Amino acid sequence: MAATPPRVVNVGLDVFAEALRAQGVPVTEVAWRPPAGGDADLARLLVADRAVRERIAAANAETMARLFRARPRWVGVRPAGEVVPALRDGRLLLHAGPPIGYARMCGPHRRAAAWAAVFEGWAPDVDSAVRALQSGEIRLAPAYDHAVACPMAAVVSPSMAVHVARDEASGLAAFSPINEGRGRSLWLGNPDAGALDRLRWFHDELAGTLSAALDRAGGIDLFGLFAQSLQMGDELHARCVATTALLLRGLAGPLLEAGVPGPVAARAVRLLEANSLFSLTVTMAACRVAADAAHGVPWSSVVTGMSRNGVDFALRVGGLGERWSVAPAVPMDEAVYHSGFGVADAAGDIGDSAILEVVGLGGMALAAAPTMAAFVGGSVADQLAVTEEMRTITLAAHPGFTVPALGFAGTPVGIDVRLVVETGIVPVIDTGVVHERDPEAGQIGAGVARAPLEVFRDALVALPGSAAGVQEGPT
Amino acid sequence: MAATPPRVVNVGLDVFAEALRAQGVPVTEVAWRPPAGGDADLARLLVADRAVRERIAAANAETMARLFRARPRWVGVRPAGEVVPALRDGRLLLHAGPPIGYARMCGPHRRAAAWAAVFEGWAPDVDSAVRALQSGEIRLAPAYDHAVACPMAAVVSPSMAVHVARDEASGLAAFSPINEGRGRSLWLGNPDAGALDRLRWFHDELAGTLSAALDRAGGIDLFGLFAQSLQMGDELHARCVATTALLLRGLAGPLLEAGVPGPVAARAVRLLEANSLFSLTVTMAACRVAADAAHGVPWSSVVTGMSRNGVDFALRVGGLGERWSVAPAVPMDEAVYHSGFGVADAAGDIGDSAILEVVGLGGMALAAAPTMAAFVGGSVADQLAVTEEMRTITLAAHPGFTVPALGFAGTPVGIDVRLVVETGIVPVIDTGVVHERDPEAGQIGAGVARAPLEVFRDALVALPGSAAGVQEGPT
Repeated sequence: MAATPPRVVNVGLDVFAEALRAQGVPVTEVAWRPPAGGDADLARLLVADRAVRERIAAANAETMARLFRARPRWVGVRPAGEVVPALRDGRLLLHAGPPIGYARMCGPHRRAAAWAAVFEGWAPDVDSAVRALQSGEIRLAPAYDHAVACPMAAVVSPSMAVHVARDEASGLAAFSPINEGRGRSLWLGNPDAGALDRLRWFHDELAGTLSAALDRAGGIDLFGLFAQSLQMGDELHARCVATTALLLRGLAGPLLEAGVPGPVAARAVRLLEANSLFSLTVTMAACRVAADAAHGVPWSSVVTGMSRNGVDFALRVGGLGERWSVAPAVPMDEAVYHSGFGVADAAGDIGDSAILEVVGLGGMALAAAPTMAAFVGGSVADQLAVTEEMRTITLAAHPGFTVPALGFAGTPVGIDVRLVVETGIVPVIDTGVVHERDPEAGQIGAGVARAPLEVFRDALVALPGSAAGVQEGPT
Repeated sequence: MAATPPRVVNVGLDVFAEALRAQGVPVTEVAWRPPAGGDADLARLLVADRAVRERIAAANAETMARLFRARPRWVGVRPAGEVVPALRDGRLLLHAGPPIGYARMCGPHRRAAAWAAVFEGWAPDVDSAVRALQSGEIRLAPAYDHAVACPMAAVVSPSMAVHVARDEASGLAAFSPINEGRGRSLWLGNPDAGALDRLRWFHDELAGTLSAALDRAGGIDLFGLFAQSLQMGDELHARCVATTALLLRGLAGPLLEAGVPGPVAARAVRLLEANSLFSLTVTMAACRVAADAAHGVPWSSVVTGMSRNGVDFALRVGGLGERWSVAPAVPMDEAVYHSGFGVADAAGDIGDSAILEVVGLGGMALAAAPTMAAFVGGSVADQLAVTEEMRTITLAAHPGFTVPALGFAGTPVGIDVRLVVETGIVPVIDTGVVHERDPEAGQIGAGVARAPLEVFRDALVALPGSAAGVQEGPT
């Protein structure tokens, strides 16, 4: 990782600036502005009293320090039921985003859940699976409560193979399923029998193949690898070609030296060759474990989780424990649709992959991926403008995730709910769009999604020191 | 390859512009300026008479069309003696750049030649090899006369393994030795016994391993792959990390499916994993065969070869047959040196790798590699300025080699000797710098080399239609 120190934009909160200066971090002070819209209650929360501001500033500094200490390694690929305790008993499916019942789920989510039940043998066919989901015989729970990150509409069941990312600094681990690629699949909400065959191969062979290589390699340092792929045109969320190629480069030698039989090794290698999105869920597991390492500092106002289920958007904040703020997801009207499709066809914003933006990748690193300029208007200048916009709501430039087009400055990282509420600027999230109703269409577009402002307001009110939160906050 | 049509800058020569417009190619006309320095003789050559200008314009259009039709494939790796007829008999070493005797060779070139003789068993030790080279018992010849491209100080002998790049459009092939990496080696002018062991492994095992994979893959389309790596931060000459990773991605599956034993396959994969410069000589072979396909159109004023031997610089022009223009190489005073080294330690500009710049890569694609900004001043703006400078001496924007930082415009390609002489602007060439005297130091810097203006003046005078060339040119 590069040794570039974080640059910090400090808005009004002088104590935070002092704390950073004491650590030798350059601070750019921005003149205090009243909160957009002149919301008097929120304005009061933002300025709080000096003692509260000091505690928040110190908590945020600790949050960022933990985030930057995290060094997730990809250490294995295991059946989810072996590594996620909640999946060991009974019929439970983990899904992206905040809690939701089958009846409220969007179309792709329902289809993925039903086919996952068939995959597990919990139902003989999709119709039976739907009934078991409707009756509650098969339960649903947010993956985010179990250190699992689900891409798009994917659900995770016990027999699905998940990447294991372990953070050496914190000792934590997080998980995300092997990416299914661009064909018929759970994650794109258009599963079929072939998708289940693929999941079986993941479980029966590929997980062991990859684990053998990772064992031999002693794991792969992911943030170091991500820092390289940011120099190679990836923002790692929608464009993953370099990251996947670097993972393949890192795996191929150990795979062969581990004595995996040629045809078995060849099938693994061919998957990484053919599916440039392979790295996405490895990245999600890595970002999730880093965010978990940063999470849990009392008084922290830094975002440590963003997650969507196609209907609702959920926000986790460092100082608010396991309380997630939930609000309706915003429509996918900024996306670029494939010919013949539009926002009326689209399922709502979905997936746990927004954990990348929490850690300074994806939308925060758009400037690294000029091939994705169309996501935000079409030009490299548009991408730089988005990056500058994100700087106004983040606390640091990432010391390791640097971007050539930014003169090798770090990506914006450390979304502060106070800055979001003050400015009214919400995080951008790179995302795909899947069809709401058509069971075969799958992905119909891609682009930038916006987080809803409401969740940031909700979290701000809940923070200790705020009118609502001071009584219940830590003291 | 992208379908972006070439953009053409037309300087004064209206017939060329008309010919291009007739083909639907956008033409930007630039006001005619008198040749820099007001050299009256050269000015006369540049304007020539209308009939000559028309013939040159048509020849250049054909040259560019041939260049853009070339689709080199990497089809195998073979002992040089099997594919280069001149190496089949007697003791001959092929070297970079124009003809040169052992006595005039720069230090790294002499060391490489002597160790190559030991490698072949033509001498029992380096001292004996030196005597055999001095006496002419071991002969030296320019690699460029045999469709071979030698990187830096490397020489090619019969038992060295060379990449084979074949152009389907023209049926031509060209060759370049497997890159030896950053350690002690012939190409960096600091060979030792370990370097010869590596060459033996290349010959005895690696060549067959790679060939088996390439056979299985049906070859690898190189220009399509290069177009991708230009989107991934490579300019392919000094930064090759993406290109090498993409080659590894393309080889790994076929390698395993070809039934190569695991440990043998692992050694090949580990080389590509560890040596990010692996792709350089594959690229050189590809560019050489493309340049050869474009070469040989009578009346063409387009550069089809640039080549240096550490002492002299040689230029090949499309319409001048096998006549190369030769002049002293320029000092390496624009390079960035490793700590403790400077231009006084440097061997002169050396290697056949400038064939990349002929084809629109390397220095012509610097803007694709922001990590190399230090080569030309330090900023991305400096890189864009170099690209714009190169546009003034080239005939087209490459239709397939596009660059994100240029708004996906193609790289400058098709160096016209008339434009070089007129403007006094010479091509930039990305290059490494090796130590002249120290037999162990190897690479001591890297940066941009400039072609000497003299070779372009020499070629211009020799062109048919010029004062010197009209009598002997084709009619």
